[in-house]
Amino acid sequence: MCGLWVYEMGTSDERRNRKAIVVFKPGGQVIEVEIGTLLSEAAVLAGVPLNLPCGGQGRCGRCRVKIEHGSVSHRGGVRLSTVDREQGWALGCQTVIKGDVVVLIPEQEKIEVEFKPRVVGAERIAIAAEFSGELDPSIRHVYLRIPPPSLADQTSDWDRLRRELVLQHGIQNVSASLSTLRTLSRDLREAEWNVTAVLDMGDPILDPCAHPRLIDLLPGDQTDRCYGVAIDIGTTSNVVYLVDLRSGRVIDRASAYNAQIQVGEDVISRIIFAQKQDGLQRLQRLVIKTLNGLLEELTTRNQIPPRQISKAVVAGNTTMIQLFLELDPRYIREMPFIPTLSQPLPVTAEEVGLAINPQATVDCLPVVGAYVGADITAGVLASGMYDTDALTLFIDVGTNGEIVLGNRDWLITCACSAGPAFEGSGVRHGMRATAGAIEEVWIDARTYEPTCQTIGNLPARGICGSGMIGLLAEMFITGIIDKAGKIRRDLPTPRVRVGDHGGEYVVVWANQSAVGTDIVINEVDIENLLRTKGAIYAGFSVLVRSVGVELADVEQVFIAGAFGQYINIEKAIQIGLLPDMPWDRFHYLGNTSALGAFYALVSRPMRRQVVEIARKMTYLELSADNSFYDQFMSALFLPHTDLTAFPSVIRLLERTGS
Amino acid sequence: MCGLWVYEMGTSDERRNRKAIVVFKPGGQVIEVEIGTLLSEAAVLAGVPLNLPCGGQGRCGRCRVKIEHGSVSHRGGVRLSTVDREQGWALGCQTVIKGDVVVLIPEQEKIEVEFKPRVVGAERIAIAAEFSGELDPSIRHVYLRIPPPSLADQTSDWDRLRRELVLQHGIQNVSASLSTLRTLSRDLREAEWNVTAVLDMGDPILDPCAHPRLIDLLPGDQTDRCYGVAIDIGTTSNVVYLVDLRSGRVIDRASAYNAQIQVGEDVISRIIFAQKQDGLQRLQRLVIKTLNGLLEELTTRNQIPPRQISKAVVAGNTTMIQLFLELDPRYIREMPFIPTLSQPLPVTAEEVGLAINPQATVDCLPVVGAYVGADITAGVLASGMYDTDALTLFIDVGTNGEIVLGNRDWLITCACSAGPAFEGSGVRHGMRATAGAIEEVWIDARTYEPTCQTIGNLPARGICGSGMIGLLAEMFITGIIDKAGKIRRDLPTPRVRVGDHGGEYVVVWANQSAVGTDIVINEVDIENLLRTKGAIYAGFSVLVRSVGVELADVEQVFIAGAFGQYINIEKAIQIGLLPDMPWDRFHYLGNTSALGAFYALVSRPMRRQVVEIARKMTYLELSADNSFYDQFMSALFLPHTDLTAFPSVIRLLERTGS
Repeated sequence: MCGLWVYEMGTSDERRNRKAIVVFKPGGQVIEVEIGTLLSEAAVLAGVPLNLPCGGQGRCGRCRVKIEHGSVSHRGGVRLSTVDREQGWALGCQTVIKGDVVVLIPEQEKIEVEFKPRVVGAERIAIAAEFSGELDPSIRHVYLRIPPPSLADQTSDWDRLRRELVLQHGIQNVSASLSTLRTLSRDLREAEWNVTAVLDMGDPILDPCAHPRLIDLLPGDQTDRCYGVAIDIGTTSNVVYLVDLRSGRVIDRASAYNAQIQVGEDVISRIIFAQKQDGLQRLQRLVIKTLNGLLEELTTRNQIPPRQISKAVVAGNTTMIQLFLELDPRYIREMPFIPTLSQPLPVTAEEVGLAINPQATVDCLPVVGAYVGADITAGVLASGMYDTDALTLFIDVGTNGEIVLGNRDWLITCACSAGPAFEGSGVRHGMRATAGAIEEVWIDARTYEPTCQTIGNLPARGICGSGMIGLLAEMFITGIIDKAGKIRRDLPTPRVRVGDHGGEYVVVWANQSAVGTDIVINEVDIENLLRTKGAIYAGFSVLVRSVGVELADVEQVFIAGAFGQYINIEKAIQIGLLPDMPWDRFHYLGNTSALGAFYALVSRPMRRQVVEIARKMTYLELSADNSFYDQFMSALFLPHTDLTAFPSVIRLLERTGS
Repeated sequence: MCGLWVYEMGTSDERRNRKAIVVFKPGGQVIEVEIGTLLSEAAVLAGVPLNLPCGGQGRCGRCRVKIEHGSVSHRGGVRLSTVDREQGWALGCQTVIKGDVVVLIPEQEKIEVEFKPRVVGAERIAIAAEFSGELDPSIRHVYLRIPPPSLADQTSDWDRLRRELVLQHGIQNVSASLSTLRTLSRDLREAEWNVTAVLDMGDPILDPCAHPRLIDLLPGDQTDRCYGVAIDIGTTSNVVYLVDLRSGRVIDRASAYNAQIQVGEDVISRIIFAQKQDGLQRLQRLVIKTLNGLLEELTTRNQIPPRQISKAVVAGNTTMIQLFLELDPRYIREMPFIPTLSQPLPVTAEEVGLAINPQATVDCLPVVGAYVGADITAGVLASGMYDTDALTLFIDVGTNGEIVLGNRDWLITCACSAGPAFEGSGVRHGMRATAGAIEEVWIDARTYEPTCQTIGNLPARGICGSGMIGLLAEMFITGIIDKAGKIRRDLPTPRVRVGDHGGEYVVVWANQSAVGTDIVINEVDIENLLRTKGAIYAGFSVLVRSVGVELADVEQVFIAGAFGQYINIEKAIQIGLLPDMPWDRFHYLGNTSALGAFYALVSRPMRRQVVEIARKMTYLELSADNSFYDQFMSALFLPHTDLTAFPSVIRLLERTGS
């Protein structure tokens, strides 16, 4: 295929004994590695892209490669069919190099460049609005005309600046980092002693030890240029809001997939990856790369120098926060599930590598536990549920599922290891909500023929989360599957058949799909989906009962998170993912994590409130709860073992006669 | 001389037009540089050692090189004789490359490796003693048995540690850096939850915002291993004391020449060098290199891991402190002489590159002004003069001269730009106090024959500071020079003659010296020495009068600094360097800068006292004082214009009949 193929494979015995040559097609990269190296590691060494969404556990089957020639052994490969294996297909993360190998790497899904995550209606509305509370950011810009030094007043530059901050603005006890001090003398003189001091005042109410910190010294009066960023680090998507701290207005937003996806799709995969050599550092650099890309997009588009961004407030789940700070998340995964910290100490942008003012404070919001993170504390803040009398259920179904129940007086929370089935993992034709994904399905109850709506109205490439909920609901209501999720094999339609993984239903025929094969959903896929929805439903069932109330007592349900946006409430109730209650009790809130970070950025009282929320939340560890397993088992059915909890579904089934 | 000489000099016209080849003998290094580059810069680029004690100003004449072949132009070269210039000698720092050049670099003085600065009696005594006050270092080691986490107690690692610090030791509000937190979870588990926390408690009395900082977490009970270092950064010598913080005892000491000497001998030369490209960074690295060498010596010899050194207290003059922190000292030199800061903020060892525990606090002591630094505040602390009723004069004659006058109630200070003549600069055969230096001279009043004592009793290589004072006094008392420092040319001795720089006196004949030439002192040398001693005497005259007292009222004189140790009081009075008063009023204190740093390291009350001393000291700017110039002019004579101030010298002159 290219000149590189002419490579001398026959060399000395010694090399053959311990080393092997690996040739990657179609790129033609060649690398020598130790015998025993995993093919996926060899690809990293050779700089050949190979996505490992499950972190190299052999679970997702996305790192398929074709061994064209040479000696390998396989650790496993559950995601491959017999035919696949006979044709030479193998999982890169499970293939051990035993000798010289020629391997074909199929084209990898380039999620980062191809598509952006969708922007959501409710969130758009929230952004268009300004912050309605009292504006009180910790960042302050003050203008100073400083009397220059003379032989009669030889006060040092730093003491002089501090003296004038007290005299002209009453600001005391200002500190600065060594790097700020390193340019201080020159900055003062170049500005001819007329400067704008950019200060992070901290919050003396929150921390009695807090004192103002000098972040930057700008020439002349620049008190009108004062920006910050609110950041949400999702496992899947990252979002940055650019905020004018003087008006409290979100000027612009940008989002992208978290580049960490390429080494692991969910938090567990990433924690596993972090244990590899340089894994933690690589994950940290990946998320910083994503965020810096978004920052560049925002600063360029709005013509704001990155130096003028003086503060970042960051929300995200516990693992994302720890990876962002390069704190090993290992013990988040191991029993008894302990994060390194719950109230991250403020760091500087320089310390983490964020491309804003190097001295800007980077303030990560507090987490509650290993699986209830700053995305949830921020979310509760943004939702306002901490300040309402109504009994409120807050549900964030993202890559994980977190649930909060409570009101003004109390808050209780739990996390369900829902698994990323709704994000496409563990589902054969599952995919993220990008172009070509089936997002809505209707099935004709007589013909069993489906009608699909795809994102961008393109030929279907797979099924995203909302599509799966719709598909599952329609299959259940039309009787294609039974309560247990098993496919009825006696139906008069060629769409129902038996495949490698039991019964399957063809959603799109190969000739109409964009991938050249039938797009199907099979019984293993359905089982995974039922486990996910069951875990979430069991989660809030246990939570509600733990405080002695019933689901019916819940006065409002807030649905947060990117995924929540696309859920068709009706269908989510039909499959038993959401509790059966009047639709008007459900409210989509959009990205409450980013919104909460924004509130905390522009308002110190709001920032204090997040601490109060984190302090107030009782964390219920489901794995230590006796009733969870029973609840989970009951919820593994459609819609649930206890049909009385789903009266609207019963009525529907009676109507359709299924 | 070596194979490298075979180098193709004739190349393309284009290169010849803008670039030139420089070949360095005897090493054979070859480098291509832009036309117009200074020879000294080319040497740096080629890695050829070339000492620039005056910082490349063409003042000291130490960077002599011989142009053997090629095209150069000269900016100046006042330190070269006509014969020298005819022979091809040039000053590297003043020679501009015009075309291809072959240049001979003479062997450079390798002060760092050859000799160590001498250790002084009084200082030895001080070190042998333990700190006699109340031991109260800011560093505390506490042992903790921490209950491990469980599903019933999922408190985060950091919160758990902080909780136990409060419960077991009553220590609150502990903070930590990101790097400490990055190893926290692993450290706690590897130590099986039994750890020694190393804390810097700060000083809440000094700083109400201070809170304890976690520096390290050691496995098991290591409360018995607790070390710190006291550092004195002299312009010439650096000293490190290794201190056991539990006993308050200096375990060991090490000293070396400050490696910055190679780019500048005095503070002014270094400030000039700092303005060059990367000059500041290079100076910072040089002093860190010196200090890390000393730290390695101390930790190896005493078998103490650098990690167990949890704190450093640093003293030094203002320029040395700023260079250590990589703060541009430029405005220290420019009118009106302003340092960047007077109370340096604490930094971590990591930030400056000091090879102790990376999280150790590095605490630089406060300075008073551009030329009265932390060496003086530390010195006043160590001397105890801040706590005495007696009117005390504190003199530190090092590379600069600093003077403090006062007692328990008040302190006033000034700095005289004495110049480094006593350290060998600006004196033809001047040298530092290393082996072979003439340190004491006696002259026979009848024959004018000298008897010299050298350091190490080796053949003489030059004259050090104490030797110069002795020589000047003897020449004056025996009538070889007059009051104005002019050599009487009518004396019946071949040792008096006329040379390139006016009259000169041969101290050692060539055949008895180690350098192969006559060692002489000439009238230009004497003029430089008179300027130095005149500036110091004028300094304390002005200081004393500024507070309305007389020199005779001074009850005790403390002489500090390395140079002070070797001064023969009698002879220093004879030349009018020191005031004429009974010898028992003079006290040598040794290296009070290092001693003061040591006190501040082991005792927070002492550390507070330094702040109080710096606050209390009134700084008298001599260049703004009307009477200084008159006093200086009067002090340019031997011993002084006003002979009544030197009754003991009058009596001696009458006795010897000079």
